[in-house]
Amino acid sequence: MSFAELLTQEQVQRIHDAALEILEEVGLKVRYEPAREIFAQHGCSVEDERVKFPPAVIEKYRKMYAPSFTFHARDPKFDKTIPRDSPVIVTASSAPNIIDPVTGVERRAESGDIAQIAHLINELPGYDMFSISTLAEDAPADQFTISRLYPALKYCLKPIRVTTTDHKDTLAMMQMAYIVAGGEEAYKEHPFLTHHYCPTVSPLSMDKLSAENVIYFASEGLPVYPTIVPNAGLTSPMSMAGTLAQGNAEFLATATLMQMVKEGTPTIYATLATVADMRSGAYTSGAIECGMLHMAFAQLARFYNVPCGGYVGLTNSKLNDAQAGYETGMSAMGGTVGGMDMFNIGGLIDALTTFDFAKAVIDDEVAQMMKRVKHGISFNEEDLALDLIKQVGPGGSFIVAKHTIARMKTEAVMTKLADRDARTVWVKKGSTDIQTKAMKRVKDIMASNTTPLLSPEIEEKLRAEFPGMVAGELLPIA
Amino acid sequence: MSFAELLTQEQVQRIHDAALEILEEVGLKVRYEPAREIFAQHGCSVEDERVKFPPAVIEKYRKMYAPSFTFHARDPKFDKTIPRDSPVIVTASSAPNIIDPVTGVERRAESGDIAQIAHLINELPGYDMFSISTLAEDAPADQFTISRLYPALKYCLKPIRVTTTDHKDTLAMMQMAYIVAGGEEAYKEHPFLTHHYCPTVSPLSMDKLSAENVIYFASEGLPVYPTIVPNAGLTSPMSMAGTLAQGNAEFLATATLMQMVKEGTPTIYATLATVADMRSGAYTSGAIECGMLHMAFAQLARFYNVPCGGYVGLTNSKLNDAQAGYETGMSAMGGTVGGMDMFNIGGLIDALTTFDFAKAVIDDEVAQMMKRVKHGISFNEEDLALDLIKQVGPGGSFIVAKHTIARMKTEAVMTKLADRDARTVWVKKGSTDIQTKAMKRVKDIMASNTTPLLSPEIEEKLRAEFPGMVAGELLPIA
Repeated sequence: MSFAELLTQEQVQRIHDAALEILEEVGLKVRYEPAREIFAQHGCSVEDERVKFPPAVIEKYRKMYAPSFTFHARDPKFDKTIPRDSPVIVTASSAPNIIDPVTGVERRAESGDIAQIAHLINELPGYDMFSISTLAEDAPADQFTISRLYPALKYCLKPIRVTTTDHKDTLAMMQMAYIVAGGEEAYKEHPFLTHHYCPTVSPLSMDKLSAENVIYFASEGLPVYPTIVPNAGLTSPMSMAGTLAQGNAEFLATATLMQMVKEGTPTIYATLATVADMRSGAYTSGAIECGMLHMAFAQLARFYNVPCGGYVGLTNSKLNDAQAGYETGMSAMGGTVGGMDMFNIGGLIDALTTFDFAKAVIDDEVAQMMKRVKHGISFNEEDLALDLIKQVGPGGSFIVAKHTIARMKTEAVMTKLADRDARTVWVKKGSTDIQTKAMKRVKDIMASNTTPLLSPEIEEKLRAEFPGMVAGELLPIA
Repeated sequence: MSFAELLTQEQVQRIHDAALEILEEVGLKVRYEPAREIFAQHGCSVEDERVKFPPAVIEKYRKMYAPSFTFHARDPKFDKTIPRDSPVIVTASSAPNIIDPVTGVERRAESGDIAQIAHLINELPGYDMFSISTLAEDAPADQFTISRLYPALKYCLKPIRVTTTDHKDTLAMMQMAYIVAGGEEAYKEHPFLTHHYCPTVSPLSMDKLSAENVIYFASEGLPVYPTIVPNAGLTSPMSMAGTLAQGNAEFLATATLMQMVKEGTPTIYATLATVADMRSGAYTSGAIECGMLHMAFAQLARFYNVPCGGYVGLTNSKLNDAQAGYETGMSAMGGTVGGMDMFNIGGLIDALTTFDFAKAVIDDEVAQMMKRVKHGISFNEEDLALDLIKQVGPGGSFIVAKHTIARMKTEAVMTKLADRDARTVWVKKGSTDIQTKAMKRVKDIMASNTTPLLSPEIEEKLRAEFPGMVAGELLPIA
């Protein structure tokens, strides 16, 4: 596929130059002393907290960006490398709330919910990675991250994306990973966690905890990437071009730090860029401008020859209504044909604040459509079928042709949820909407293959290491 | 914008060559004697009903295709020319059924419904053209088309797309148009109807009535275009490449006929191509493959330098649920960034069989997003806002900048229906979905600007010319 491009190559170059100018003249406010030291040691000027970047420094390190990024899974058959395996479909993550699958009422999310979601994502074929969808309100003090990671590991063998708070939290998480892998060395041979942070906060600031974590994982040679989150009108200019220029400067600064820590460290040009709705200040991750910004950032990533991705295909709706559908669908399609490699897309409603089981199942079907588009149009002489066209002739039918029968299950996505019945059949089946069908699928999945994916021995070791750890059990959905 | 392309240029050329081969060796079965005569007189070979096309004939006439097509409106401020004004957003049309806006129950559509829909489309800013959305079950015998056209003209000043049955029906329609325009000459100076037919039926057949109408309008110099409708697995090969090859042959044959009738006749490379769901034989106008085929046909249209369009962004759902949203959104976005000029998209559910008022209003919002994407990223030094970025600096805010205030209503689509409220606000407002908000908008529009757009004098002339004509009155929506 030749990707859709909203920017000309001259404009891409201009955004690169503008970012260099911003980094040289304004630079970043870096609130973490060791990061400032790294910058200083590698050619940046540092004055108080302000770090400024000579263009030659940015140019030197951007030649070191790795051209690919691998998401490892506990079961290596789920490993994915971008851009080769793109689009890689990931759950959107870290929502504080959830729509309770039994009552349908919104409430705080807990660790038991994460177990259910992990199982669901493990079973749904459209998803390639589980970025832990919610927080866990019931996490014991000092077990913030392991209370989320444990249920995820217990029910999902796909790559898991996770974030942490302070360094102690990070070390606890790694301890858990080492136990599950059978030791630190075994883990590091196939690191099934992908670490994610937002160290650079728009506009142009780098925080302490996230920067510390990014530096730690980059120096350890473990998979980590940052997301850049400018919000036009609030934390970047109320213009897509200005938001791209500032966001690009923020990406370059962060990626440069990672290369300074360890040359050749793989990273992702990942973004969650939006244009604020200034009528209310609303965060519009469902707006079409969010999709457009991501298409443009994908062009910048190609300019740097680095894989890209981000939060696109989200919705502001509180329900699985038509709005949730078209907001997800339009930006997801834009990102797909715009050449994005990774999509943090699945399962969240209400502008990333709430997980919904039905939405996750519906997004799985959307994901399969995105993959169909990327797979493209198969094109050889057999596909062209000229002999068949000649043979069938004017007014004939292709329905019984061998060519048809051989391809009827592969040429098109065999949808599971989308209603394609005649109206009479649909009425007989209960006149249901896709929300109803999606919740039925959720319940079916929750009732099958529910064996935990951690052995009793591992369970025992984890409980010994982390006393008071959450149960992480699957709750039945009646 | 640089458009997304699913085919390489070599593949486009191969499809062109394949179409020439099909037209030379198989040709078309043409069931209308005068069409066969035209083909014979202009270099085709005709044997019984079979017309075969030497490649030189196709190549000669394709150089005559006009590079643009104009949709005239009764009010010239609504005139649109593609590709210049693309995307031109049109209602999808000719559904036999409607969701009753008062009861919510599906029933046969009538002429009064068309009056309501015409008024709605006239008022909704996202729509550029009204292709009469439904049939009229209450049409008197021999008034099939004027029973649909009259309510459309009474309440809509935008370009109107219409189809007819036999030549008598066509002449009655033109008589109505002449009366409304103030005479045949006045009408022909600014022909506010766009005529549409599907003369070529897949595979490779040309019918009598539609061919007769296309020849008539082309010879009269009035705006007319055909749509090509292959359905992979049933009326074309179960492969996108084969469907493109055959569909392209069908387009070329039809366009060649139009040029033989009158050289330089404007036309549109218009399509409604689908891949059948062979599990049930379902017509899948909501499937992603429909969107992909249209993106590819748009590439073929660019190869021929002729404007393109078609039925894309439709749904198989019976409701305005998430399925209706993502099916519409994904293919609409694919078509937009794939370079389609015209979209027959708005208002229909259930695979083109049923009109729904709420869907039409929701599609209006989708249309505005499509136009935002096509408008693209504004890019000059003021957009880049480097001075502002430097001035605000790390950790600052853009919220009160003049640059922000000047652009906050133009940089992003000011959505009317999409919910962007905080959850607490949304709950206070009644926890409504977009369907509820859309029906409220329908009722608001139905209650305002309801003056008929035909003068009493014209009304009188029409009633004298067409005794027993339908009332075409707006019905109140309680």
